[in-house]
Amino acid sequence: MRLRNKPWARDFIASHPEVIIPNPEAYKGKWAEIFGNNHPIHIEVGTGKGQFITGMALRNPNINYIGIEMYTSVIVSALEKTLEAGSPPNLRLLNINGAELDKYFDKNDVARVYLNFSDPWPKNRHEKRRLTHKGFLKLYESILTSGGEIHFKTDNRGLFEYSLVSMSQYGMLLKEVSLDLHANEPEDNIRTEYEEKFSAKGQPIYRLEAQYKTN
Amino acid sequence: MRLRNKPWARDFIASHPEVIIPNPEAYKGKWAEIFGNNHPIHIEVGTGKGQFITGMALRNPNINYIGIEMYTSVIVSALEKTLEAGSPPNLRLLNINGAELDKYFDKNDVARVYLNFSDPWPKNRHEKRRLTHKGFLKLYESILTSGGEIHFKTDNRGLFEYSLVSMSQYGMLLKEVSLDLHANEPEDNIRTEYEEKFSAKGQPIYRLEAQYKTN
Repeated sequence: MRLRNKPWARDFIASHPEVIIPNPEAYKGKWAEIFGNNHPIHIEVGTGKGQFITGMALRNPNINYIGIEMYTSVIVSALEKTLEAGSPPNLRLLNINGAELDKYFDKNDVARVYLNFSDPWPKNRHEKRRLTHKGFLKLYESILTSGGEIHFKTDNRGLFEYSLVSMSQYGMLLKEVSLDLHANEPEDNIRTEYEEKFSAKGQPIYRLEAQYKTN
Repeated sequence: MRLRNKPWARDFIASHPEVIIPNPEAYKGKWAEIFGNNHPIHIEVGTGKGQFITGMALRNPNINYIGIEMYTSVIVSALEKTLEAGSPPNLRLLNINGAELDKYFDKNDVARVYLNFSDPWPKNRHEKRRLTHKGFLKLYESILTSGGEIHFKTDNRGLFEYSLVSMSQYGMLLKEVSLDLHANEPEDNIRTEYEEKFSAKGQPIYRLEAQYKTN
């Protein structure tokens, strides 16, 4: 994603603590306090401009959603989208680094992780940065409920091939795989901004659902 | 595959018992007698016209190959190809039904199963006929060595999606996945007749290697 400098971003974020939680570390293990209920929490790591997470929150009021985006200049777009959507009570955003999820979430805090069009980091020496590298799979497991799931979409063939093998080797079970999501698009698919752009070019969108083993 | 009636096929097959073993049930648990060595045995279930298995046998003299094809009118083409290749000593063909593999092979007889462009059986009611249905995965496991592998290629998206999930749910581990084999074709890839035809149309060829859990 191209990053533009937005000097007003920090002030704008600070003026909406009801959406972008300013002190998320305070809620580790007690996110129900934020939402006022015990509904399952689904997070999106790398929420970008927020079209996906906002759409999901509006469609599924009995799920709590948290969009995570490390880039301040990008999360402001997700904030705008959230405000335009009327600040759904089941949606929050966090301006944090996905590599530090365990600072903010405890085991069993999260029921599902969404990864959408994550950076492919195609060079071998950057493998550890891929959000489906075993290091990240371990990190997600440390905050997920037993049998928690990852739902992953991408247009990047190399990253998808890598992720299938990485998840399998980690011991996860594949529940669903689509190698051309839009050839037979499910009614409940919510497209990200990228997804719309890539699909218009006729490139296939890959998608999977994988589940951690229950202990 | 279109099947043509070939009345001469049975006689032709019978006249080459050195290639198409007439009594394969006699070698269950003792295939080394056929090959005269203890090299690993790799089988192809649905060997068709034989281009793949013949090419593999010529390339890898230290592996023993067995091509399995139930249709008499098809296996004659594989027989012709084998004879043209000079009847490699590490190659045999079996005119048997893949659903009865355990009549001819014992546990540990086989180190690897190749499935190439298998019939997709797209209708739900035919799911059990797909060569990656759990019934077949169990059958292969019953003749494979511990940690044995399945190598699978297809142009059929639905069958490939199904197979990824089926193998994962069976407890197999993915070792390699390619979602466009010819975009970056490995030097050692041997194309089947179908593969050449489909690739010329620009359709992606999918490929995976999966391994059974070691006990």
